[in-house]
Amino acid sequence: MRVSKLVSKTLREVPADADNISHRLMVRAGLIHQLVAGVYSYLPLGWRSLRKIENIIRNEMDKAGGQEINMPVLHPAELWGDRMSDIRFTLFDRRERKLTLGPTHEEVVTSLAARYVRSYRDLPLNLYQIQVKFRDEPRPRGGLIRAREFSMKDAYTFDVDEAGLDVAYDKVFQAYQNIFTRCGLDVMVVEADSGAIGGKDSREFILTTPAGEDEVIFCPACDYAANAEKASSVKEKIDGGKPLPLETVATPGMKSIEEVAGFLKVPPSRTLKAVFYIADGTFVFGVIRGDLTVNETKLRNQLHCADLRLATEEEVIAAGIVPGSASAVGLKGIRVIADDSVSSGVNFVAGGNKPDTHLKNVNYPRDFKVDIVADIARAVAGEKCIKCGGKLSSTRGIEVAHIFKLGTIYSTKLGANFLDEKGESHPIVMGCYGLGPSRLLAAAVEQHNDDKGIIWPVSIAPYHVYLCPLPREGSKVTEVAEKLYQDLQAAGIEVLFDDRAESPGVKFNDADLIGLPFRITVSPRTLEKDAVELKKRTEKDPQIVPLSEIISKLKALI
Amino acid sequence: MRVSKLVSKTLREVPADADNISHRLMVRAGLIHQLVAGVYSYLPLGWRSLRKIENIIRNEMDKAGGQEINMPVLHPAELWGDRMSDIRFTLFDRRERKLTLGPTHEEVVTSLAARYVRSYRDLPLNLYQIQVKFRDEPRPRGGLIRAREFSMKDAYTFDVDEAGLDVAYDKVFQAYQNIFTRCGLDVMVVEADSGAIGGKDSREFILTTPAGEDEVIFCPACDYAANAEKASSVKEKIDGGKPLPLETVATPGMKSIEEVAGFLKVPPSRTLKAVFYIADGTFVFGVIRGDLTVNETKLRNQLHCADLRLATEEEVIAAGIVPGSASAVGLKGIRVIADDSVSSGVNFVAGGNKPDTHLKNVNYPRDFKVDIVADIARAVAGEKCIKCGGKLSSTRGIEVAHIFKLGTIYSTKLGANFLDEKGESHPIVMGCYGLGPSRLLAAAVEQHNDDKGIIWPVSIAPYHVYLCPLPREGSKVTEVAEKLYQDLQAAGIEVLFDDRAESPGVKFNDADLIGLPFRITVSPRTLEKDAVELKKRTEKDPQIVPLSEIISKLKALI
Repeated sequence: MRVSKLVSKTLREVPADADNISHRLMVRAGLIHQLVAGVYSYLPLGWRSLRKIENIIRNEMDKAGGQEINMPVLHPAELWGDRMSDIRFTLFDRRERKLTLGPTHEEVVTSLAARYVRSYRDLPLNLYQIQVKFRDEPRPRGGLIRAREFSMKDAYTFDVDEAGLDVAYDKVFQAYQNIFTRCGLDVMVVEADSGAIGGKDSREFILTTPAGEDEVIFCPACDYAANAEKASSVKEKIDGGKPLPLETVATPGMKSIEEVAGFLKVPPSRTLKAVFYIADGTFVFGVIRGDLTVNETKLRNQLHCADLRLATEEEVIAAGIVPGSASAVGLKGIRVIADDSVSSGVNFVAGGNKPDTHLKNVNYPRDFKVDIVADIARAVAGEKCIKCGGKLSSTRGIEVAHIFKLGTIYSTKLGANFLDEKGESHPIVMGCYGLGPSRLLAAAVEQHNDDKGIIWPVSIAPYHVYLCPLPREGSKVTEVAEKLYQDLQAAGIEVLFDDRAESPGVKFNDADLIGLPFRITVSPRTLEKDAVELKKRTEKDPQIVPLSEIISKLKALI
Repeated sequence: MRVSKLVSKTLREVPADADNISHRLMVRAGLIHQLVAGVYSYLPLGWRSLRKIENIIRNEMDKAGGQEINMPVLHPAELWGDRMSDIRFTLFDRRERKLTLGPTHEEVVTSLAARYVRSYRDLPLNLYQIQVKFRDEPRPRGGLIRAREFSMKDAYTFDVDEAGLDVAYDKVFQAYQNIFTRCGLDVMVVEADSGAIGGKDSREFILTTPAGEDEVIFCPACDYAANAEKASSVKEKIDGGKPLPLETVATPGMKSIEEVAGFLKVPPSRTLKAVFYIADGTFVFGVIRGDLTVNETKLRNQLHCADLRLATEEEVIAAGIVPGSASAVGLKGIRVIADDSVSSGVNFVAGGNKPDTHLKNVNYPRDFKVDIVADIARAVAGEKCIKCGGKLSSTRGIEVAHIFKLGTIYSTKLGANFLDEKGESHPIVMGCYGLGPSRLLAAAVEQHNDDKGIIWPVSIAPYHVYLCPLPREGSKVTEVAEKLYQDLQAAGIEVLFDDRAESPGVKFNDADLIGLPFRITVSPRTLEKDAVELKKRTEKDPQIVPLSEIISKLKALI
């Protein structure tokens, strides 16, 4: 491709609305163009890279036994009920039938299985598609990182039992590892919450980058890694001696854990904190050790609620609770959930349920009752690993894939059953596996760049080589470059040929911004030696390579 | 691929809602599955064929200098105004912004050109995409022939002038010819009406098949061919002697052209027929020779109206017109449009504008005035060709592609301009080019089938070979077939391997229904001769081919 013919142009100005590196670079390098918030056109360079990613995915999914299909964007809304209604686009057709734009395809693919699977002999199955999906995100951001229209590879496996699902899940897991390796991306596998789709075991693939919106807690000493939403840590026992009798103390004006702990000269870990939520409209009283914070994903899972939010001060007072001095001691008629840290020590300081009053020597379960005790605490770096006791670290990243063991949730709901050898009917055991090619494209740029532009991994670069002639009047540079352009392509090397009448500075800046793995410069100076200059985008200095060797040299590198 | 593993199954029953051959066969062969009216999932066999078609298209578009991009499904509705509002799906996002699902992409691509094209040096450009499109058709039918969600390859060219557009148009025209030839399809190029997209010259590619919903008028003696919406024919002069004085005659009870002509003993071609329309809410009086019928597409184009329908009898009477005895003679205050056949003869019979009364010797323009005289007649088979005078024929087919010279309609509307060598600004001259891969898939099946099933052209068949072992207890059939399955694939031949424990009849029926180009049968009988049976789907009788030669024989055929 000749740069002079390319529809997209590089841009010097940084787009005003671009809130992260990949978004800025992708717009400036001419890979994408926004049509409306969270909705992008792919220009030729961006589209080439996306198709390379998709083809790597397709190849690995086929090797893992996947059958490629393609399901529609338009779904009848009744197939969905209320599921994901907060982010689904809905519309009505000319006959006033309510439709929805597919945000994912569990329902549709399960309906297909219900139609075509009859017996155990039809299983196992692995169906996948690479298709456009739609989610009306409240805050589309980061260019392709969180778009409203995006590309998704979604796969679904169908098995007769859990053992079959385990095999299918492991196959896709390995395919995903292969995909990220082939794309040249550094991706971490972490334990994950199952979220809105439902199901049990699930893992996420997180591409590590400081700008990522996901936090990962991991142990450098072992293989433990989990999304912060899911991560656990050891809650160490705090030696507080023997349980002592309850004691009321005046704490005038002291409301926060810090104030109370400071006033009573105990560490926050010797206090119990009260937190108040509204879960699907019902008031919930939470208790957690004062040095820990609540993980709302864990809380939501324990409460099995769809909607969860902090209670307002008005709602707290209306529930008969004294903000700043609340504890579960003596509490009646309100649902209480406690983090299991309430058992990690004795003689805690807690609220006295009267203004300016706290209690000392509060002990569980002696002094208060709870409805649920579970891990609802947020794990943080510095705490101990639950697997090996090592010191946990944290990092940030972008979720680029997510795999789930769904079990029979959808097959039961949609009647996707099979007959076993004895002729008995059972629901099919399913797994589902999502991987976002367009988000992966952006994440790759987010992970691979410098202050000059993108640094493409070879396998997903739009082209391999940026061919950059620097002609001077009377030189043979243009002639040699034109011939090299043809010869490189004939050798199967993909070339972006900067045939413009621009200065070396402009050309080099564009080469760095677009970020192809290799830049070849042809100039009167290099031609004196019958050579060209080869520069890797990852290296600072170019090398001189004889013209006669440049093709074989590049072929070895690609 | 093993048939035993394939998610889709062939179906014996004919789907109740399938109204044409391709729809029935595609459902029965397991290529597609309907989710909701006009919206289909592609199963593995259908998806493979569609991707082969898409790759042929991509390859030919690239050769024609196209740059592949990908534009979004979601468009801001304001970009569209009222255009195509009758078939656009619209919706509102969470911020109540009105969006539309793209039925085509002229507006979006022109906006891209407005963003990136600055000077004549940035032109010419050819941008294309293969992408999913949405039209809320009043009557989705024929499976993929007229779907509401469908695949489209749309291309757009951008040039500095009409001469550039002509070159660009011819290149895409040639690419399309190559595509249909490579897909093994018989496609006719016809002149076409520009329809809703706007523009001037346009041609359609019609895949001929009796079930097609488009009618084509063509001349077997020359290269004239046009969609019936657009077709013209010679309106021969009728010798009626010299104009005679107007004469009133009583025609008691005679209303239709046939009745009046029979009563007055003149052929219908010696009468003038009156027809009444409502065009964008306004009454229009039409006049055409009695033996011809109005072509509403031509009428709509002449009237430049969006909405056109026949007037009701109430509306005709309310306009002061006497149904059954109407003519334009003496008519006032009503817009009159006449087919140019009013000049093709003299002394016509026409309505007397009083009940049971007609006029003889009506002559144009002596006796009545019209606002527009133009060709608004429907051409029919048997009439004379306007190019060579030959006798026109007609045939039916499916429109699979449509190309337009748009000119500057969209570039003017959306401010897509370029600066010429002198620094003067001009609107970019555009062409647009649509080709429907999913419709083409269905049309291919519509054109290539017999009473047993589909007959795939090799280039777009889901697989090349249906490998059909017929094992008998103690034979080596399974072993040989398994090895052949591996060897064929290693040779690059795509194989669907019927490894099921089914009877020969079931396997042969499925092979014919799915319709791969070649069937190989391995049986104890063929193995006696160290051979297999090779049957082309297009031929009745199989041939015996030695096992050692089958791969080279197939490679030569594919």
